[in-house]
Amino acid sequence: MLQWDEIDHCAKQWIKDAGERIRQSFQSKLTIESKSNPDDLVTNMDKEIEQFFINNINKTFPTHKILGEEGFGNNIDTLNGVVWIIDPIDGTMNFVHQQRNFAISIGIYENGVGKIGLIYDVVHDELYHARKGKGAFLNTKKIQPLKNIQLNESILGINATWITENKRIDPRVLIPLVNAVRGTRSYGSAALEIAYVVTGRIDTYITMRLSPWDFAGGIILLEEVGGVATTLEGKPLNLLAENSVIVTKKNLHTEIFEKYLN
Amino acid sequence: MLQWDEIDHCAKQWIKDAGERIRQSFQSKLTIESKSNPDDLVTNMDKEIEQFFINNINKTFPTHKILGEEGFGNNIDTLNGVVWIIDPIDGTMNFVHQQRNFAISIGIYENGVGKIGLIYDVVHDELYHARKGKGAFLNTKKIQPLKNIQLNESILGINATWITENKRIDPRVLIPLVNAVRGTRSYGSAALEIAYVVTGRIDTYITMRLSPWDFAGGIILLEEVGGVATTLEGKPLNLLAENSVIVTKKNLHTEIFEKYLN
Repeated sequence: MLQWDEIDHCAKQWIKDAGERIRQSFQSKLTIESKSNPDDLVTNMDKEIEQFFINNINKTFPTHKILGEEGFGNNIDTLNGVVWIIDPIDGTMNFVHQQRNFAISIGIYENGVGKIGLIYDVVHDELYHARKGKGAFLNTKKIQPLKNIQLNESILGINATWITENKRIDPRVLIPLVNAVRGTRSYGSAALEIAYVVTGRIDTYITMRLSPWDFAGGIILLEEVGGVATTLEGKPLNLLAENSVIVTKKNLHTEIFEKYLN
Repeated sequence: MLQWDEIDHCAKQWIKDAGERIRQSFQSKLTIESKSNPDDLVTNMDKEIEQFFINNINKTFPTHKILGEEGFGNNIDTLNGVVWIIDPIDGTMNFVHQQRNFAISIGIYENGVGKIGLIYDVVHDELYHARKGKGAFLNTKKIQPLKNIQLNESILGINATWITENKRIDPRVLIPLVNAVRGTRSYGSAALEIAYVVTGRIDTYITMRLSPWDFAGGIILLEEVGGVATTLEGKPLNLLAENSVIVTKKNLHTEIFEKYLN
């Protein structure tokens, strides 16, 4: 098996296995802690699932490095070599409150180039997957390239937080955009919201603070369908830092930056 | 069979059949029109599904009356007798853009008293159902009574529209509430958002404009789990008019009216 076929095969197998572990955990009681603030939750499952990936990767691909949300991976300051960027449970608040609407996200990069992107909606058993240059899929179904849409007919994924007073952006910047679109939605999992842009269910997703593991898988899928992701300054996303993020269709990216984010 | 057993049996059968028709329609092309404004969409499926229910109800229960979103039912100005209040596709924008996150909603009332509530998440084949006094269920699983939660640990379902300038409420009323809760979500289907409150996935749902068919099924489910629904003035919902709506847990209803909606 070619190396990237093997990596792809393993990553898909492990993400499915991890999903099964999470589904089984619904029967048992969670241990929930807060991280940086009372609303930044982490559970024993977040940690257990990250360890599960790390153990498998270390054993099978000992030269690969790992950047994970819960910090059990490597201390990484470059993207040299093969790097797995993993969020074991993206949308932990949903996981805790809803037992749905969360995902496992994995992006696998080689010298900074995205090679494999996976987002697994565990409860609905929906695996969004892509390999660079080979298209994006939802389970076995090919995801079609994104089509342009008019801004006033588009749907914007945005959390209400960013249009009230907050530390990251003047709410008056985004309110006109909220008023210009057809409707807004907010699902509480960045990975799933990017998967929603990839599948055309929403047209744009904007958030003011994402870590690399929140978007590393999604932007590989996005590239395969012709979407675009940048910071809100229009700069490329940094895979080693926090970013503001806009994920959208090409024509909307142009229009939003011309009219609302200039 | 007792009359209400028969009504319940038929309603569940028809809602499942209607769901199957909708799932099959994903293969064919939709006809999409706008109603009151360009973002108020209606499709041929909304109309077809409403007609499907009306034909079945008229044939099987000729004395029953029907209030439906698309207006093919009866012209109703009282709730005397048995009245079916039906939204054939709640969340039409999601239906059009996403082919998911919409629901069929049915509330069946006798002289104004809610007897049967049904919300069917068609794509996920999840039927939320309740009969007055007999508890609420998700498919075959009993839904547990709602537990109190602290406001600052609760999740609020609210569309970003209501915290920007709009015709219905001063955004400054709701912004402090948005800032007080743990997080906000917005799914774009009132029926599903009420079902989310019923199942404890979110704790509160607030919107400034709902028609009876948007909430008629949901509030019957809600009563079975001990939740509360009123207008934003704290008044009972009117099943023959548009309402502002708050659907929540009892302790949150008290706290939100004391601190934010007084």
